[in-house]
Amino acid sequence: MNILVTHDDGINSAGIGHLVEAMKTIGDVIVMAPLGEQSAVGHALTVTLPLRVHEINRDGSFFGFAVDGTPADCVTLAMRTFLAEKGLPLPDVVVSGINHGRNTAVNIIYSGTVSAATEATVLDCPGIAFSLASYNAVPQFGAAAEFAKRFVPYVDAQGLTRGTLMNVNAPPLPWEQIAGIEYTRQGSSFWEDTFERRLDPMQRPYYWLKGSYHLVKGETDCDDYALHQKMISVTPLHYDLTNHKFLEAMRNGWRQDF
Amino acid sequence: MNILVTHDDGINSAGIGHLVEAMKTIGDVIVMAPLGEQSAVGHALTVTLPLRVHEINRDGSFFGFAVDGTPADCVTLAMRTFLAEKGLPLPDVVVSGINHGRNTAVNIIYSGTVSAATEATVLDCPGIAFSLASYNAVPQFGAAAEFAKRFVPYVDAQGLTRGTLMNVNAPPLPWEQIAGIEYTRQGSSFWEDTFERRLDPMQRPYYWLKGSYHLVKGETDCDDYALHQKMISVTPLHYDLTNHKFLEAMRNGWRQDF
Repeated sequence: MNILVTHDDGINSAGIGHLVEAMKTIGDVIVMAPLGEQSAVGHALTVTLPLRVHEINRDGSFFGFAVDGTPADCVTLAMRTFLAEKGLPLPDVVVSGINHGRNTAVNIIYSGTVSAATEATVLDCPGIAFSLASYNAVPQFGAAAEFAKRFVPYVDAQGLTRGTLMNVNAPPLPWEQIAGIEYTRQGSSFWEDTFERRLDPMQRPYYWLKGSYHLVKGETDCDDYALHQKMISVTPLHYDLTNHKFLEAMRNGWRQDF
Repeated sequence: MNILVTHDDGINSAGIGHLVEAMKTIGDVIVMAPLGEQSAVGHALTVTLPLRVHEINRDGSFFGFAVDGTPADCVTLAMRTFLAEKGLPLPDVVVSGINHGRNTAVNIIYSGTVSAATEATVLDCPGIAFSLASYNAVPQFGAAAEFAKRFVPYVDAQGLTRGTLMNVNAPPLPWEQIAGIEYTRQGSSFWEDTFERRLDPMQRPYYWLKGSYHLVKGETDCDDYALHQKMISVTPLHYDLTNHKFLEAMRNGWRQDF
């Protein structure tokens, strides 16, 4: 199995190191990831600037390509042009992560980790995003990496319908303490954000985002609830954003003459 | 009606000027938009850097606030902190656009214009994105602006369910030549992208995205088809990305022991 690994925290992050090590045990790995951190970058593609690719030999532990762009840039550049140009195989699966921080509920729409997996499905390749529900300075990537080893070949064997990707979130626990796997839907937890107003040394104001995550209780079939139960959450996503139910209501009841 | 206007092409773009003029005829307008162009920025939020706000008096035609961030930054900063701090009213509706270029099918996932409207719905405020299906150097914003005048009050009166936004795309025609309004779903047209490899003056390679849009034929209930029929396309979107059908299949047939 040929596996393309990327990560929005960049090629030098701890998370991608753990995912690369896990993927090496099950297939041939190519790494193409942003040069620097690209958090909350959403599904950005770089169109007004050119991209450069730097060959990186990280700590002798892995060789890879670093791009001065977003995670989605990495996937699309690799699959559309770069790998073929280098005589490298196209991936059977694209994996993204392991993100340091949960990508559940509303977080999904801001996530560079998820967008990389989405971009793979746009190019008709299975994509799987891995995230760790932890904000500790020294995160425990072990269970997420162990599950990745087991789940990636399973997804490859099962196959995904076109346009579908897998969004995996793991609790920050050793593998032995994981209570199980749950197939979930995207929940509705949200951020209670504000911006802190500060003054710079010239006494000019600036604003900095800060927030706390509000866990919506009682959504027992959702991603955040599974994590709370010490389970690994797996959510199938797609990028059909149509609200089909609302569309039906509009077609039946909304004006069409304006 | 209090209307917050934003736009991913920035506060100095032609498109936002047309939308502001249209909105002024139906309500009280506040403009908060990126300082510069933010195309294909997706749903990015700026978390690692602070944001600054600049007061702009554009050509004497309108006053507004420019933010050195993304369209989603503008909406969330305005609604969570900035408007209240300035003693300004919260919006009844957030409108984004008029984007120069269609935001249909796969384009939706990369769109800063759509992400601004999505961010409004995250904050429980109706959001409407307006785009023009034209790449002409001198675009005809007239019909999109005219429809915005008529449609925004209608949406305000109808109300949107929480998490739902409207994605409007107009053909580049005078209002009189518009064939009608169509309530559509997101289509499956896509980009046949490649990257052009070039050499800089130092003979180092760089890659630049280029592509052509592949219109999928025969999707008669979809956004791009409506535009092709000289109709204005209105698609209700939401940010529940769960593939519910696939989730059902996983729950019934996929392994749960790993």
